[in-house]
Amino acid sequence: MRFLLLFLLPLLSFAQTINVGFKDFQLKAGLNQNQFQYQVLFKGKEIVAPSKLGFSLAKPAIDLNRFSIIKIDSSESNSTWRPIWGEEDVIQDHHKKLIFHLSTIGLNSIKLDVEFRVSGNGVAFRYSFPKQDNLQHFIIKEELSQIQLTGNHKAFWIPGDYDTNEYLYQTTLLSEVDALKAAEKEKDIALTTLVDDHTIQVPLTLKTNEGIYINIHEAALIGYPAMMLKLDRSNYSLHSHLVSDAVGNKAYLETGFSTPWRVIQVASQAKDLLASRFILNLNEPSKLTNTDWIKPQKYMGVWWEMHIGKGTWQMAGGKHAATTENTKKYIDFAAKHGFDGVLVEGWNKGWEDWFGNWKEEVFDFVSPYPEYNLAQLKEYAKSKGVKLIMHHETSGAVTNYERRMDKAFQYMVDNSINTVKTGYVGRIIPRGEYHDSQWMVNHYQRVAEKAAEYKIMVDAHEPVHPTGLHRTFPNWMSNEAARGTEFNNAPTLGINPEHQTILPFTRLMGGPMDYTPGLFHFQLNQFEKDRTQKVLSTLAKQLALYITIYSPLHMAADLPENYEKHMDAFQFIKDVPVDWSKTIVLDSEPGEYVGYARKEKGKGNWYVGAVTDEHGRSYKVNCNFLEKGKKYQAVIYKDAADAHFEKNPEAFVIEKTEVDASSILVLNLAPGGGVAIQILEK
Amino acid sequence: MRFLLLFLLPLLSFAQTINVGFKDFQLKAGLNQNQFQYQVLFKGKEIVAPSKLGFSLAKPAIDLNRFSIIKIDSSESNSTWRPIWGEEDVIQDHHKKLIFHLSTIGLNSIKLDVEFRVSGNGVAFRYSFPKQDNLQHFIIKEELSQIQLTGNHKAFWIPGDYDTNEYLYQTTLLSEVDALKAAEKEKDIALTTLVDDHTIQVPLTLKTNEGIYINIHEAALIGYPAMMLKLDRSNYSLHSHLVSDAVGNKAYLETGFSTPWRVIQVASQAKDLLASRFILNLNEPSKLTNTDWIKPQKYMGVWWEMHIGKGTWQMAGGKHAATTENTKKYIDFAAKHGFDGVLVEGWNKGWEDWFGNWKEEVFDFVSPYPEYNLAQLKEYAKSKGVKLIMHHETSGAVTNYERRMDKAFQYMVDNSINTVKTGYVGRIIPRGEYHDSQWMVNHYQRVAEKAAEYKIMVDAHEPVHPTGLHRTFPNWMSNEAARGTEFNNAPTLGINPEHQTILPFTRLMGGPMDYTPGLFHFQLNQFEKDRTQKVLSTLAKQLALYITIYSPLHMAADLPENYEKHMDAFQFIKDVPVDWSKTIVLDSEPGEYVGYARKEKGKGNWYVGAVTDEHGRSYKVNCNFLEKGKKYQAVIYKDAADAHFEKNPEAFVIEKTEVDASSILVLNLAPGGGVAIQILEK
Repeated sequence: MRFLLLFLLPLLSFAQTINVGFKDFQLKAGLNQNQFQYQVLFKGKEIVAPSKLGFSLAKPAIDLNRFSIIKIDSSESNSTWRPIWGEEDVIQDHHKKLIFHLSTIGLNSIKLDVEFRVSGNGVAFRYSFPKQDNLQHFIIKEELSQIQLTGNHKAFWIPGDYDTNEYLYQTTLLSEVDALKAAEKEKDIALTTLVDDHTIQVPLTLKTNEGIYINIHEAALIGYPAMMLKLDRSNYSLHSHLVSDAVGNKAYLETGFSTPWRVIQVASQAKDLLASRFILNLNEPSKLTNTDWIKPQKYMGVWWEMHIGKGTWQMAGGKHAATTENTKKYIDFAAKHGFDGVLVEGWNKGWEDWFGNWKEEVFDFVSPYPEYNLAQLKEYAKSKGVKLIMHHETSGAVTNYERRMDKAFQYMVDNSINTVKTGYVGRIIPRGEYHDSQWMVNHYQRVAEKAAEYKIMVDAHEPVHPTGLHRTFPNWMSNEAARGTEFNNAPTLGINPEHQTILPFTRLMGGPMDYTPGLFHFQLNQFEKDRTQKVLSTLAKQLALYITIYSPLHMAADLPENYEKHMDAFQFIKDVPVDWSKTIVLDSEPGEYVGYARKEKGKGNWYVGAVTDEHGRSYKVNCNFLEKGKKYQAVIYKDAADAHFEKNPEAFVIEKTEVDASSILVLNLAPGGGVAIQILEK
Repeated sequence: MRFLLLFLLPLLSFAQTINVGFKDFQLKAGLNQNQFQYQVLFKGKEIVAPSKLGFSLAKPAIDLNRFSIIKIDSSESNSTWRPIWGEEDVIQDHHKKLIFHLSTIGLNSIKLDVEFRVSGNGVAFRYSFPKQDNLQHFIIKEELSQIQLTGNHKAFWIPGDYDTNEYLYQTTLLSEVDALKAAEKEKDIALTTLVDDHTIQVPLTLKTNEGIYINIHEAALIGYPAMMLKLDRSNYSLHSHLVSDAVGNKAYLETGFSTPWRVIQVASQAKDLLASRFILNLNEPSKLTNTDWIKPQKYMGVWWEMHIGKGTWQMAGGKHAATTENTKKYIDFAAKHGFDGVLVEGWNKGWEDWFGNWKEEVFDFVSPYPEYNLAQLKEYAKSKGVKLIMHHETSGAVTNYERRMDKAFQYMVDNSINTVKTGYVGRIIPRGEYHDSQWMVNHYQRVAEKAAEYKIMVDAHEPVHPTGLHRTFPNWMSNEAARGTEFNNAPTLGINPEHQTILPFTRLMGGPMDYTPGLFHFQLNQFEKDRTQKVLSTLAKQLALYITIYSPLHMAADLPENYEKHMDAFQFIKDVPVDWSKTIVLDSEPGEYVGYARKEKGKGNWYVGAVTDEHGRSYKVNCNFLEKGKKYQAVIYKDAADAHFEKNPEAFVIEKTEVDASSILVLNLAPGGGVAIQILEK
């Protein structure tokens, strides 16, 4: 089968085939014996062999897989736009567009458009169901999108799962993918709903034998279930597999609808994947007109101490963390060090019995524990110039959250709180729905939209994978949607050092992640002596994550008392911005190392971060991104010579040196280490 | 098998059996080889042969069916209470109580209480799961309640269905029940989800060969799915069958929970079933403290004209009924004739595309059509002393309704509207849930409770069967939950004349029904000439329904122009109260005839109504309910001598005569006819 692929006829030979070239890409698409196919070439090399597109509908019960072409439209567009916040001030969107207006063959023919965009970063396609006489409401049984890969690539993947994306990444050949086996090792994810052994998730990153990098994701996931990929391990074909609803259907749609984009990005250097803005460009512009109230933030929180056993979310048991007193300490510390916000989890009644029972009425989102005097804290935070961040853990009981959301948001407004961290730990209610099903995808959007009505910023934990929607809903600041810092504390697998070198190539392709970096204490038995969990990172790497993991919301996750032991290193977290005017991706290789240089928004300062996997390495930073002729002061937070993520994680060195655009810094990254550099205009 | 039943050993002979006698009833209950059984005798005759009780749980996955007795409590209680509105001023609640505190046999034994009540009307039982160490959260797979009947009784039943109770009643022997066959004839119910051929619904009424009447229902359905009954047609055993949720579970519960009551009422005269207040007594007292704002009402509405093709709900098409102008006409008519309210359906945007597509975002409940000027109508209604009644059709999209309910109710308050007619036509969203599943049962209650927060009265259409909850939530005035007036217009079966003689013995056992009587025009082709549907009733019967169908909300369903043709008969509808101080059930026989005399609340006047099936009959009303020695003026609205529900429905006679407590009125009821009498104090 693999042999056969190499000799596939180019699509070009079929009738009704259109060939669009753009920069390094060539897209061919058209009909082959009434089936609609497309093919993608990159620098003359076939990346996607001829692959079919179509749908299977549940209502009406028909397949949309044999077409005739009504019309083909094509155009080119080149424009720029300015995000409200982000990795750069200005984003260019240059692409060619190709739309096939199709009609199914047979009685009661149905109109379906397939729209392609070809940019300098890759190819994307989506389906549109135009308004038409023969169809209005319809139910998707399955989307039949194929991506026929052309070799047994190295893949960075996580198991296909309807309820979670918090797996560690696997690195295997496509032929070696075994999703169930990979999931077997995962004992610490609250809820898993696996599909089968050969279904995996997007974003998926691949590397070919020839060293070409491919990322497959979706963009603008609106009104539709998340896409997983069913892999044929014998011929490397990927087939879209949509997340099911409670009765086994995939999506309830009405004509006038466009699916999310299926995005295939390709690059000859790994770092070019990271620099791509293709997914953002495929999303719609902001739906919000007034955005003055939206502000990138750094925050601290009453949070990590519950994970490591110092405190508890629930009031019962005598270790309740979210007390007025404790919150004031965090406010004091945050105010002293210039943080914007303080997150408080465990503030509201219900934590005694919140998880694991598919219970609907858990939290009401407006009832603080008696130990948490919100009225007082509201005034206290205000007097200190800090904003509280509200936590809405739904425990998966989303019906309960939705019916209370208006009052919950009004309660936030009444208490001068304008950022909410939402949480979805547990089985979803409506029962039978999943975290990634259409109903839930709609829910996350509803939260963003309703929050905007109340001028509230959203940071969603345990949601569906992001797909660039922060362009359209810029108050939807960040998401978790992957394995984040708290898994350092998970007994079984934890977070291995390569994790943060794969994240940018996978999860982060869809948008910002609230990873909650900044741990300064690595042996997690501070409060429970029998804990063996360790943070598999150096301290310098924890600093670097503020640069390598982009988010407009970044937490300093550790306890104030742990920061107080290293106030010199903490200075970097205090200084690092969360909004940028320019981003340069440095040398990067998925699973090995990643580096970025970013320019502070509105200023001439730069920040550099680089992280490595379990291997130490020498990492070169060419400072040619700096303004020529200008002198800068660099403050380098780096691993000490004997630093090591397991043996000596806290050993770091701070160096100051003068740099300019001609400087090349050669930096030692310890095993599991990293480097963070502040480069200030002189 | 049937033969065997007659020789069943009396339970009395088992160890640990308790025997409670009360009036005509004898209850025996206890353990038989570790199984919990009960038996019911009425006047010495076995009504329920030894029958088992228990549960099958899905989580933990165990059956609760082998018990030991920890303790038995018994007591007797005799009290009275006063409903806020109802069929009488004062209700007596005299019963004996018997509670078995059970524990399952085996490791990790689970505590379960079975509580019986024996009243003069029958026996009821329910289960309670007390708080306990071995169990907190649990999931019900099935309730294992058995009711072993003792013969092949005549049954008045409808097919077991998770989504509707709008079937015509069937009258067959138990052995002849075929739910699927009965349902096959029903072409006009919007949505059916049948169980199987031998599962039927409660309320179920039975008549034994010996002429004993039995009604089986449930009371206080809270936090639990509705119960259907699985009938073993070979041995007349009934087994509880709970309505499923989206994933096949029945109920998600937490200890400290009591199930609804399973109620077996027995009477030697049919009318004694109708006079029973046992179900009300099994419900909890009102949860509302301030009830001043709750008022029984008579109303008219922009409604029937849509059913018969004069107008439409949707604005598109040029026949929109809910215009400002048309609503004013109804307000004028209602005001002129002393009605309290005017219902307006089709007032809000969304009707163009509201049904049949499992669509979630249909109505927003706050957006009137441009043709409906609510601000103006609010003032107009106020100036006329009439209140508008709001219509909230959910089209089954209950998640959508719940997330908008607060704003929808606030909108009502802002527009001086304090009664809502809710509607649930269509497949439920959350998809996979049913009209009668636990989640929906909780929803109906949530609506009642939230409405009460806004001082709004509720009239639910297409809900689960009522179970006496109007005692606990007295703003939950009425429900449809059975085949009502609009089915006169259904092409296939319509409403046969016996329907209204079965309703009181079945559906109405659970509470008031918004049947919407009062049709004065019987050939339904007034606006669409090719319509062949007819109202199978006489005009006098339509008047009688205001008495025989109890509801604190009664509609005059027909068009003002149809009433204007018979203003003499309309006078009865104008005069008839909707709140009573006393109710006397007259001679009644399910499927044949039903009659009531009711005393107007706060006054000395009486109203009598009687209806018959397709057979004409002479119906005797003994006026001995009148105050002795007092003279009354009776206004009798009766069928003319030649009246007939098919051939001559509009022929009626109004007679006036003087009556007193010694009078016996002998009244001719035409085939499909009835009589309505107003008896005024002189």
